[in-house]
Amino acid sequence: MKNNPGDAVVEEVEVSGHIIDSLLLPKILDSVITRGGQFRIVEINIGQQRNDPSYARVEVSAGSREQLERILAEIADHGAVSIHAEDCRLIAADVNGAFPEGFYSSTNQRTEVRVAETWVPVDLQEMDCGITVDVESGTAACVPMSDVVIGQPVIVGHVGVRVFPEQRDRGHTQTFEFMDSAVSSEKPKRLAARQVAKWLVEAKRNGGQSLIVGGPAIVHTGSTGYICELIRRGYIHRLFAGNALATHDIEQSLYGTSLGVNIEHGEIMQAGHEHHLRAINTIRRCGGIQPAVERGILTSGIMYECVQNGVEFLLAGSIRDDGPLPDVITDSLDAQRQMRKGVRGVTFCLMLSTMLHSVAVGNLLPASVRVVCVDINPSAVTKLSDRGSFQTIPVVTDVEPFLRALVDEIAKLDLWEVQVETQS
Amino acid sequence: MKNNPGDAVVEEVEVSGHIIDSLLLPKILDSVITRGGQFRIVEINIGQQRNDPSYARVEVSAGSREQLERILAEIADHGAVSIHAEDCRLIAADVNGAFPEGFYSSTNQRTEVRVAETWVPVDLQEMDCGITVDVESGTAACVPMSDVVIGQPVIVGHVGVRVFPEQRDRGHTQTFEFMDSAVSSEKPKRLAARQVAKWLVEAKRNGGQSLIVGGPAIVHTGSTGYICELIRRGYIHRLFAGNALATHDIEQSLYGTSLGVNIEHGEIMQAGHEHHLRAINTIRRCGGIQPAVERGILTSGIMYECVQNGVEFLLAGSIRDDGPLPDVITDSLDAQRQMRKGVRGVTFCLMLSTMLHSVAVGNLLPASVRVVCVDINPSAVTKLSDRGSFQTIPVVTDVEPFLRALVDEIAKLDLWEVQVETQS
Amino acid sequence: MKNNPGDAVVEEVEVSGHIIDSLLLPKILDSVITRGGQFRIVEINIGQQRNDPSYARVEVSAGSREQLERILAEIADHGAVSIHAEDCRLIAADVNGAFPEGFYSSTNQRTEVRVAETWVPVDLQEMDCGITVDVESGTAACVPMSDVVIGQPVIVGHVGVRVFPEQRDRGHTQTFEFMDSAVSSEKPKRLAARQVAKWLVEAKRNGGQSLIVGGPAIVHTGSTGYICELIRRGYIHRLFAGNALATHDIEQSLYGTSLGVNIEHGEIMQAGHEHHLRAINTIRRCGGIQPAVERGILTSGIMYECVQNGVEFLLAGSIRDDGPLPDVITDSLDAQRQMRKGVRGVTFCLMLSTMLHSVAVGNLLPASVRVVCVDINPSAVTKLSDRGSFQTIPVVTDVEPFLRALVDEIAKLDLWEVQVETQS
Amino acid sequence: MKNNPGDAVVEEVEVSGHIIDSLLLPKILDSVITRGGQFRIVEINIGQQRNDPSYARVEVSAGSREQLERILAEIADHGAVSIHAEDCRLIAADVNGAFPEGFYSSTNQRTEVRVAETWVPVDLQEMDCGITVDVESGTAACVPMSDVVIGQPVIVGHVGVRVFPEQRDRGHTQTFEFMDSAVSSEKPKRLAARQVAKWLVEAKRNGGQSLIVGGPAIVHTGSTGYICELIRRGYIHRLFAGNALATHDIEQSLYGTSLGVNIEHGEIMQAGHEHHLRAINTIRRCGGIQPAVERGILTSGIMYECVQNGVEFLLAGSIRDDGPLPDVITDSLDAQRQMRKGVRGVTFCLMLSTMLHSVAVGNLLPASVRVVCVDINPSAVTKLSDRGSFQTIPVVTDVEPFLRALVDEIAKLDLWEVQVETQS
Repeated sequence: MKNNPGDAVVEEVEVSGHIIDSLLLPKILDSVITRGGQFRIVEINIGQQRNDPSYARVEVSAGSREQLERILAEIADHGAVSIHAEDCRLIAADVNGAFPEGFYSSTNQRTEVRVAETWVPVDLQEMDCGITVDVESGTAACVPMSDVVIGQPVIVGHVGVRVFPEQRDRGHTQTFEFMDSAVSSEKPKRLAARQVAKWLVEAKRNGGQSLIVGGPAIVHTGSTGYICELIRRGYIHRLFAGNALATHDIEQSLYGTSLGVNIEHGEIMQAGHEHHLRAINTIRRCGGIQPAVERGILTSGIMYECVQNGVEFLLAGSIRDDGPLPDVITDSLDAQRQMRKGVRGVTFCLMLSTMLHSVAVGNLLPASVRVVCVDINPSAVTKLSDRGSFQTIPVVTDVEPFLRALVDEIAKLDLWEVQVETQS
Repeated sequence: MKNNPGDAVVEEVEVSGHIIDSLLLPKILDSVITRGGQFRIVEINIGQQRNDPSYARVEVSAGSREQLERILAEIADHGAVSIHAEDCRLIAADVNGAFPEGFYSSTNQRTEVRVAETWVPVDLQEMDCGITVDVESGTAACVPMSDVVIGQPVIVGHVGVRVFPEQRDRGHTQTFEFMDSAVSSEKPKRLAARQVAKWLVEAKRNGGQSLIVGGPAIVHTGSTGYICELIRRGYIHRLFAGNALATHDIEQSLYGTSLGVNIEHGEIMQAGHEHHLRAINTIRRCGGIQPAVERGILTSGIMYECVQNGVEFLLAGSIRDDGPLPDVITDSLDAQRQMRKGVRGVTFCLMLSTMLHSVAVGNLLPASVRVVCVDINPSAVTKLSDRGSFQTIPVVTDVEPFLRALVDEIAKLDLWEVQVETQS
Repeated sequence: MKNNPGDAVVEEVEVSGHIIDSLLLPKILDSVITRGGQFRIVEINIGQQRNDPSYARVEVSAGSREQLERILAEIADHGAVSIHAEDCRLIAADVNGAFPEGFYSSTNQRTEVRVAETWVPVDLQEMDCGITVDVESGTAACVPMSDVVIGQPVIVGHVGVRVFPEQRDRGHTQTFEFMDSAVSSEKPKRLAARQVAKWLVEAKRNGGQSLIVGGPAIVHTGSTGYICELIRRGYIHRLFAGNALATHDIEQSLYGTSLGVNIEHGEIMQAGHEHHLRAINTIRRCGGIQPAVERGILTSGIMYECVQNGVEFLLAGSIRDDGPLPDVITDSLDAQRQMRKGVRGVTFCLMLSTMLHSVAVGNLLPASVRVVCVDINPSAVTKLSDRGSFQTIPVVTDVEPFLRALVDEIAKLDLWEVQVETQS
Repeated sequence: MKNNPGDAVVEEVEVSGHIIDSLLLPKILDSVITRGGQFRIVEINIGQQRNDPSYARVEVSAGSREQLERILAEIADHGAVSIHAEDCRLIAADVNGAFPEGFYSSTNQRTEVRVAETWVPVDLQEMDCGITVDVESGTAACVPMSDVVIGQPVIVGHVGVRVFPEQRDRGHTQTFEFMDSAVSSEKPKRLAARQVAKWLVEAKRNGGQSLIVGGPAIVHTGSTGYICELIRRGYIHRLFAGNALATHDIEQSLYGTSLGVNIEHGEIMQAGHEHHLRAINTIRRCGGIQPAVERGILTSGIMYECVQNGVEFLLAGSIRDDGPLPDVITDSLDAQRQMRKGVRGVTFCLMLSTMLHSVAVGNLLPASVRVVCVDINPSAVTKLSDRGSFQTIPVVTDVEPFLRALVDEIAKLDLWEVQVETQS
């Protein structure tokens, strides 16, 4: 679908209105770049005051005619029209209940089409329709796919079509967009795992520090092994959590359960709700997690791997803690001070299913630290952004499969790296 | 807090970088207007190509010194700096663990402060802290409130502080914002009811048409009476719903239950799950809703009020329908065609707790029709926006209290109107 | 709908199978009582071991024939059959696409009907259908309402119909139930507010103590006034919360905003995210909430009313706290100890939009204390129950309208009380 | 931990109160069986009427002393007490802030302990504590772990402890349980995938029919390949879906996007929102899905695999459909009739991310068909159960990782089967 790259094709478009403060011009320029094109601002007049309209003429270039067409089609929806106006192109429908190939697909914005050198408003405006034109009467209207009859003239392509983006609420222009919400649970998540894997590998190679902030759902959902694997492979440098994560991790190591639910079979164990208490009691009797590892009592799990692999862990207390474990910092100001020290040097932070600790750590991190927050609950990530940690990349998914995919991706990258090293 | 309005106070600021495609300039101009100020673009150089930096000098004016200060403080967070640089102002802390009044409150963005005519980077950058300066060594750092000690010099005001918004991901600049997500369930909702009341009143006065698109949760949550009241007061002109809303409304009228739950006591009734079937059967035996009203069988509820008050209702079928009622249009293409006709002339649309019907109607409405969507589930409103109905104003709340508040507000406005009419 | 109460009507039913450990018998007895009937166990044989079937004969009595019929219809769905077997009753359909009045409404459980003194299995079993019988061939089948044709014989009433509840998973019998889930957001919530009002009034009259455990969403959603009203009326005796509720309450009192959002207009204020920090700083400079009230700096809001009305408040710290306020107990073990003392004597506890504090307090309360937990997020209440506080009554709704309704109900009860007192 | 199985150990317990209608006895018997024990009902007196208390004596046996202890500990929490009462056993704490090993862990129910042959009420009742006894004064109280001091006598084991389950609301006794809610998102989900894999394999081996009911999130989340794999391996016999699943599946096959989002890179494509319309248009021009496959236009994806592998598919229409595809049954009554035929012979049904189709199919299925419903939204599964499909097993998780795990598990089982066949 690519032509020879030297042959740039070029088109000039213009846009007017409140193009700066309504974000129209920025959106247009962004679209051009995102779709692989180039732009040059030929002329720009910016209204000096609020009510003055602005005007811009922009030269758009792309590597091929097809690419340029796609760019022009997209920016047309933001109000950018070619300066060389042509009439819209019509093809008669050849099948009942279907459009001709290449049909123009409507938005729900006010639209005009150029018929016999005149701009004509489109009637019955509705998204996801075609546009039919009555050339004689000089009228145009949206038509749904299933209502098309053979012979009906239908617009193809974007030539001769112009869209007027709706202006509302303090002059913000709203543009027609699909799937733009950050927290939709409908987006593919495998990609997120792949991206996080790359950042973890990048941090390790470049001497960065990766921090995990985790909640007990990591243990409840059976994901302990994935975190252990990441620690053993050297991708995790610090762990911030609360009493709950450590307790249930140790409960699982000692009893095979998490909050009384057997991790292997998913059954609720007899008297299982006592296990976490007994686990805490055991560690308190040892004097702490490190002593419990040293005495051979704690022999697996996340906390064990932290001790064995020199990962600094910080457990911050909360009022809902049972026990707590001796390692827990029960004073919240003390905990904040130590977390403040602990985030120095951190270059990547992965937050896993803990609203409390995520917001707490988010408060302490400079915006330059990349943060990914994984939670099955969309409101958890919304809340994090609403508290100022705008740089957070939200991943609305279940933590277990996310971590499973992450370890898979890390394993692939590790393998690839080993091969590269062996060959060189 | 207002000075005499004639005395506009003025300040010039400058901003540079990718200020157009990173949306910085639009944000700054928007902030000025939103906070009641005026702007004049004194000078602007826009990079002609992607990598060329841009520069703008903007004159900001406001009605009072305080207002101007507030505007400057806000746009400073977006990178706009006064062209008359001054040193930051320092006050020694007078209380342990607290800042002086008027302290500068930090963001999590990279920041510099001007000390002895030199811009100095701020160390330990963290949001919601103060900034302390060591004038001798020419260093500055964030300090949390509880760590302040008496005598420590702390920056007050925004003078001599500049912020560098983080650039990431295709040049989009991310700005520091609180409570910016549209779907937070933490926002006050009484205001939303008041606003919707105004729009309903406005539509009625101006001869507009208000459409309700509703799901059965209206009945389940005991909100039938509110819709009836709105109909009787003449605020609803059309109703789009499915078999379920009409069935449970009729079930409630005939049996006092909704899906077998008693609306008055909240108890699950004996054999109550059969009530909706018996309700449908009764209407089918009558031949439809209108005949059932005419024969005196159906004597209350939403559907009854529609018949009595001439509100056009349209019931569209779905595969999960029991029965269905004879009025239900079972063919989805037929239903779409009739909905298409039904939305003509609609000027305001209130969608209540129905994802299926909301998306269906959203698809048909031009963007110029104001839409408010009320749902307790944030993902319902997210989905509506992701399907192109970007103009939708989301209200994440329970439908019953929302409608209760709406009727309250309507009643107040009605009363006020009556008084005005009586007086004139 | 009631006959003269002396004339109890009686019927004997039998049930067999794993009626004890599959919960069938308990469900049947519970249904009888719930629907206003009486039972007498005439005969019972309980299998001594797991695989032995059990058998029970139960006499059911009710005040009227209609009531008895309703009870029998309901317990028939749990497998209870009259010991005097009769053939099912058939009526020919008189309308196409509708059942005769009084039709039997099917479940999705295996069913048999008695035709010519023989029990015949029902074919095409499906819920919410009728049952048609071919008497000649001795066969029966479910038929959907819309497929009925005139003349088709359809079963009416429950006589001659028996249901075999599905057995699955360790012998648990599953019964056919609608709207049984505790956390459905589809239930009417006004009733919940009325019930809570009664409990608050009851506690006040009987010298009980009511505790509110609240999160900052109370303030964010504009509900401050309702809590203040409850305090002033003497219904709240203790308040447990965190730094956030108190901070935003004070922020609202000092600046009119909550987390920077104006409570009256819903607009995001300029530099509003700083307000909570400035509010904390102000209180820290005063030395605490009580001094701030005494010095006339804090003059409204929840914390103010607590001080003025002698409501004991306890603010427990967490690691996400800014500041915190001087009154906050930052050590979680200290906080737990003081909460333990604070819950002594509490007879009613209302938890409002705070998962952290709700679980913490739930851990400390004996099961005999009535607890109502209001949250817009169903998973918050699920979590509370999963942590052992099974007695919690969940109300899935928005906190603002819930409190508005609660204050309304309280006002009515108060008024009524005043009238009663005046008259006596 | 197992003794020789012949040596059954035995203990007799008694329980009294409203043990039938409060579900206490059923819970006790269920616990005994679930934990691997046996029971024999030695004596039972059931109150003939509502207010008569009941009494049961039950012999509990288990394969080992440890197992019996665990059973007794669990049923003790439901009020079952050994008929041979002994005093509670006390051990002095040997570590500050920790209990002795084997400590009794408290519930939040009213509790008594036997001290010097007298039952003494426990003071300060609170869950997850130990119980300390002052033998001299004959008093007992709960003590939190962190408050234990060396020398304090603490109860170990369950001997001499009895619990009185709380009675409330129409006599229902509430028992102390952890993690009992069906829809918690905190449970391990890998196990669910394993179980579903077994059922699919079982259905295939035994000539059963497996039905998938699926929504478009399957495509949006990038899970198309997993469904294709299941079809090719012969595990799916029927597919019920709507226009959306088929459209986005075909969109992905033709354009590589789903709702305009690129499945591989997760990027929003240019003009991508038009892709689904163009996909529908292409199929409409072909006359249907099968012709499109035959003409070589549709060459991959779920619908393609259905055609190639003889999987019957049924697409039911809805009012939010664009197009729709020619294969869609637009009349909802027609669709129901065909679905009714389509579910005959189905033995296992997997519902994936579609509330509308899940409830519709749930309405048609007899309760004997096993149903698993996977949805990231807990309210979707709640709603399914509330509509009568009580047999549904809910899995609250993301559909993509669930299907990934399912295909993994299926592949393992297939491999194992091949090996077994080869060896024999």
